[in-house]
Formats: sequence, structure tokens, C-alpha cells
Amino acid sequence: MRFATFRKAGAVHVGMVDGDTVRSLAELDAARPVTTMTDVIDRFGELYDRLNDWPHARRDGVRGAEPYPLDDVELLAPLPAPHRNLLCVGKNYASHAREFDRSGYSATPSGGVPGAPIVFTKPPESVIGPYAPIRLPRGVTGCLDYGAELAVVIGRRGRGIRAQDAHRHIFGYTILNDVTARDLQLRHGQWFLGKALDDSSPMGPWIVTADETDGTAALGVRCWVNGELRQQADTGELVFGIPDLIATLSAGMTLYPGDVIATGTPAGVGAGFDPPRFLAAGDTVRVEISGIGTLTNPVAEVAAGAATEGADV
Amino acid sequence: MRFATFRKAGAVHVGMVDGDTVRSLAELDAARPVTTMTDVIDRFGELYDRLNDWPHARRDGVRGAEPYPLDDVELLAPLPAPHRNLLCVGKNYASHAREFDRSGYSATPSGGVPGAPIVFTKPPESVIGPYAPIRLPRGVTGCLDYGAELAVVIGRRGRGIRAQDAHRHIFGYTILNDVTARDLQLRHGQWFLGKALDDSSPMGPWIVTADETDGTAALGVRCWVNGELRQQADTGELVFGIPDLIATLSAGMTLYPGDVIATGTPAGVGAGFDPPRFLAAGDTVRVEISGIGTLTNPVAEVAAGAATEGADV
Repeated sequence: MRFATFRKAGAVHVGMVDGDTVRSLAELDAARPVTTMTDVIDRFGELYDRLNDWPHARRDGVRGAEPYPLDDVELLAPLPAPHRNLLCVGKNYASHAREFDRSGYSATPSGGVPGAPIVFTKPPESVIGPYAPIRLPRGVTGCLDYGAELAVVIGRRGRGIRAQDAHRHIFGYTILNDVTARDLQLRHGQWFLGKALDDSSPMGPWIVTADETDGTAALGVRCWVNGELRQQADTGELVFGIPDLIATLSAGMTLYPGDVIATGTPAGVGAGFDPPRFLAAGDTVRVEISGIGTLTNPVAEVAAGAATEGADV
Repeated sequence: MRFATFRKAGAVHVGMVDGDTVRSLAELDAARPVTTMTDVIDRFGELYDRLNDWPHARRDGVRGAEPYPLDDVELLAPLPAPHRNLLCVGKNYASHAREFDRSGYSATPSGGVPGAPIVFTKPPESVIGPYAPIRLPRGVTGCLDYGAELAVVIGRRGRGIRAQDAHRHIFGYTILNDVTARDLQLRHGQWFLGKALDDSSPMGPWIVTADETDGTAALGVRCWVNGELRQQADTGELVFGIPDLIATLSAGMTLYPGDVIATGTPAGVGAGFDPPRFLAAGDTVRVEISGIGTLTNPVAEVAAGAATEGADV
């Protein structure tokens, strides 16, 4: 199954994607409306049979949801407001680890392919949906980079999860574009600030559940900038596979439903070129992962000026 | 003013601390009950006069809240469930930057005193309150360390905040003990995993509002382990002061009410001793910051075994 969060006629819905249509789940359970992706994740086991039947409900004469053409809705990020920072893995393709160390944007250029997963976070508020503009704030960064990544969405709480049990904690998979300000990443030592710009985490177009796509198999990952293929790899090349990542992350830290784990980006990022090829205003970044879908976002330059809200405290 | 989150007779309240008592704010506004610290932060301007009068309400014959002795309530972290990861600053005292680089637990031992703020995050679920046990998970880490820090609580949303305007965005101050697994911090390159253990972010005992304590002045910071003084500094020694941190963090990332910025720890952490003096089961860590209060937590060793919840997804 594929679940998307979308806006239609001003209202936000979670819905099931079927071909080139999406059906709201608002009326799936009259007693307890399903309105957010969190509802779907938390109640997936309980609702599984009903969800499976949902695309056929109208056809069978049962009250169901009207299928909206995807072109007629605004897709949002499948998890538009994650409950905490995204968990992200760095240098998890050998090809990218090498290009990054050569690039001049690494604080530890001799680091090479890591011996243990490198984990950093991105703030929930950096998340944007398909087609929403990636923000390039003038005067804040001059080195905005893209990074195509398979992202895992956790469905079941756990700590001390063994790698062989990891699949039991995966709700599904989506795409994350790990947009990074390479100058800030280098200047501030730890990577967080370079990964934290507003609107720097395009996510989507939807979540494909684990029973439909096996994200631990080799999925093709590609990224184009303005139609030029920049990244091409498959997730079989991950240095640390998804079961290992879940085991490592959960060893001392509880994972929760709705957690997002971005598994790392392959070679071909802008910083890997000589000279670097960073994003510019008007660029379009398109990420495709086989079995998942396509995530496209334009880049929009904005002035970096102050923006505050609310009275003084 | 001082605001605490506390449990009394099974219910969680936010309250105002007055001497050695605390008064619930549940009945401060009958029309819109004030039940969480988020309510207090969001409505501080609107409620300011009523809050100021609250300790005197009963004395003046006005309906007010019964003052509970602090000893008769369970203090929780003032923000028990932060809306996103805590923002933390590394190596922000020169004395600690030097001891850390000498320690053998730094991935970049030649880093020295940073030229720009080093920023990492800790997950919201790592937060615990005063007297709650710091979790030492056997088999996950053998190098659990303490770190006394002044923490700033943001009260007003903003991006591109200038250093000279930073004070307008500060709600108040509290204490954070940045408990760190030094082995994980080193092994995983980026610091997040070493900072993310469950129950590794003691916070409290309350938030002191910015109109009562000027956190940008020099406040004494001290930390004892089992009564032995390990850290002693004042916040005037911060490499990057609070206005600079707020300006740097908000340059490209919006800060929100309820964000917590931990400003870094001074020299004297366990990793700084030769041999290192890490935390052990049964230890007690006490952090004191002048003008704020005292935060005390025991250390409890636990087996690291699996803990999962909910059905398979």
C-alpha cells in the first residue's frame, strides 16, 4: 500500500494512492476518523483489512472514498510534522564517502568509509513536500547541495532491536532529499547546522509500506538536476544496511513510530565535482527510487532577512 | 518568575515556584486552563500581570492556588516533552575544548577552541527530570559522562535574529546535564548517537524567566559527582555567548517557542581526567547554576536487553 498526505479544497487528508489516484481515509472508520499519517502508522495492524478493501469499496457498492486524480491534489510530505528530528546516516555509500573526503568540505578528510554508522539529525520543520521550493537563503549559504536517499519509516516502538528483528519495526519507505549547506556543515564541525536550514528536507511523494516494497533489497536510487543525471546507485551498496542501522540506532535509544531514518546518499553530490556544482536559483532536483516513486523540488533563492513572530517575551 | 512542571496526586501540573513552594496554574485562567509549560511560554505576555499576582491571590482573599511544599511534589523536567530535539553547543568553554581534545575521545583532536559554534542535538525522549535516574545501559556504553550546562528556553519564534535582538526571543533559563556516552560519541564520528541514550538529558529543576535572571551575565556553573566538585566555571567564559548562539542558530533555521539551547559544558568532565572518571552505578550527579537552582540525578545501571511494544507492523 501507498499512503500520502495531501491537501484538497483547503483540507489536509491522509489517503491511499492507487495508480494515479488517491483516496482520502477520512471516512474509513466513522467511529475514529483517520486523519493523519500518524493515525495510519499507529493503527495499521487494526485497519489492515479495511485498508486493503478501500480501493474497491465504491466498486462493491460500499460507501467508499472518491478517487481524486493525483494531479488534482497538492501532495504534502507524507509526515509533514515529524514528532522529532529526522535520523540521518552519513557517508553510507563507499563511493560518496570517498568523494566527500576528497571534496574539501569534510572536517575529517582522512575519515574514509566509516567503521560504524555516522548519525546526525535534521529538524522536523525542515521537511517540505513534493514540488515545494527548496529554500536557498542568500547570505547564509553559497554551497547548497542535494542528496538522494531512501528513508525508512518506523512503525513499532523498540529499543535493543536485533538486526534480524528489524523488519518487524519498519512501517514503510519513502524518499528524502538531504539538502545540505556544505559551507555550514564544514564551518560548524558537527553537521547539524548545515543540515538544518528551513525547507531543506524534501520528503515524499508517499510512503510505500514494507509489505509492498522490500527496502532491504537493492532499490535503484537516481537523482537529476535540471534533467542531468547526477547520482545513480542502488541500496544494495549501503555500507550499513537497514537492519544494521536499526540495531545500531536502537541499542540505547528507543525508536518510536513515525521516526524517519534516512539511509545516506550515494556519489554524485554537488560537492563531489571539481569545481563543485551547487544548487542555484531556478534549478530543479528530481530523485527517483525504484518501487517508491519520484520526488521533484525546485530551488528558490530568498533574502535571508529577519522574520519574527509574536510579541516580545 | 520560576515555572516548574510537577506531578501531584497523579496529575501533572505546571506551576509557579515561590520560595520552597509551588502553586499550580491550573486555575489561573478558568476560561483557558494553563496546564503545560508550552501554555505558559505561548501566553506569557498575555498572562504576565495575573502570573505576577498569583502568589498573592490567596493572601488577598482572591481565589488562588494552594502552595504545595516542593518536598511534597514530584518535579518533572520543566519541558517534559520538547517539541523537537534539544539544540546543544559543543566545546563552548576553552578549558573544556582543550581537555576534550587531549582526552582521546575526540575524533578531531587538533580541533581546539572552535572558530564557529559546534551544534548537535539530543532527542526529546532523552529528557528526564530532577532525581530521575540517568540510565547506564550495560553493554551499550562503558564511558558515560556528565556535563553541566546553562540552557536557554526560546519564547518567541524567529529566523535571522540579530545578536542585539536575541534577548527578545529568550523566555528563560534552566539547567541541562548533557550526559554523553564518550565511546559512542567517538565511534560514530558525529556526536548524536553518543548524546541520544534514553534518560541522558536531565533538565530542571525549573525555568527562571529572563526578567528574573540575566543568563547573558556571568552565572556560576558547578557540578559535583558524589559530593566531589568536578566542574566550576561561569557563563562569562562561554566562547560564543547566548546572543551569538541565537544569531548563528537562527540564521537559516527558524527558532520556535519551547526550543532549548544548551550552551556547552566547562572543563572537568570525566573524559578530561587521566585515567577518565566515568559515571558508575550508584553515583549521584549534582549541577548548580547560580540564580537558577540545583539539578540532582542518580545513575542506575540497567541491562541493555530488547524492549519492544505493540504488534508487528
